[in-house]
Amino acid sequence: MTDEYFMQQALKQAEQAFEEGEVPVGAVVVMNGKVIARGYNMTEKLKDPTAHAEMIALTSAFSFLGGKYLPDATLYVTVEPCLMCTGALYWSKITRIVWGADDEKNGHRRITKDEFPFHPKTVIDKGILKDECAALMKEFFRRRRSK
Amino acid sequence: MTDEYFMQQALKQAEQAFEEGEVPVGAVVVMNGKVIARGYNMTEKLKDPTAHAEMIALTSAFSFLGGKYLPDATLYVTVEPCLMCTGALYWSKITRIVWGADDEKNGHRRITKDEFPFHPKTVIDKGILKDECAALMKEFFRRRRSK
Repeated sequence: MTDEYFMQQALKQAEQAFEEGEVPVGAVVVMNGKVIARGYNMTEKLKDPTAHAEMIALTSAFSFLGGKYLPDATLYVTVEPCLMCTGALYWSKITRIVWGADDEKNGHRRITKDEFPFHPKTVIDKGILKDECAALMKEFFRRRRSK
Repeated sequence: MTDEYFMQQALKQAEQAFEEGEVPVGAVVVMNGKVIARGYNMTEKLKDPTAHAEMIALTSAFSFLGGKYLPDATLYVTVEPCLMCTGALYWSKITRIVWGADDEKNGHRRITKDEFPFHPKTVIDKGILKDECAALMKEFFRRRRSK
């Protein structure tokens, strides 16, 4: 299984968010080549701005594993994590994070700058299917503006 | 009602966490002079490292209000918020945040440095009952080390 394959799974989650009128971000948590948890943005549905795709996927993964750390796991998320999700990923001690599109406005790097905010052992990769991930976001905000 | 009064309410939450073997951090959300939501750290009980006092109090407040923003609200929390909780507070657009004790290790400022990570309109105050808030943390970690 490739990074592209798992990012496609995250994109499916993002598409579900899109269909439900949510900012289209999706995430999956993978261990041993299998998706163990999924999440998509539900901030409107739950009226809770903390209900981001990553938070939902992480909490689902902790629940599935019965433990509060995610060694040997990778989170795939379609858009660069925000500050909150970055902090949550820090606490999870996750092995690897892969995001698709960068997010200049709400991505964590606008605040964290040169500091590495994740767990020291966490590996970061980005840019996987970034055009598809970004296109979904652009289309969402284009439609919202034209309403 | 004074800041000290509401920080005492947050301290009661932290004491509950202490009694349950959780890192003793507590929080309350106040609107119009009334506590509308409470939370204490439940990371061990829920086996979820995102179950911080602030996250629980915030989600409870969104649920109570039926909305995803907290204008005209103040969060009192016994210890400086971590990066995750800071990001969550950013999204909430909360009016004011008051914390007791600083947290050099896990507080958000270790990463955010000179960047202001909260919503631009959010006012920050700190140091209210800081000795009591810090003493509870110190006692918790002293006991844990001696086990």
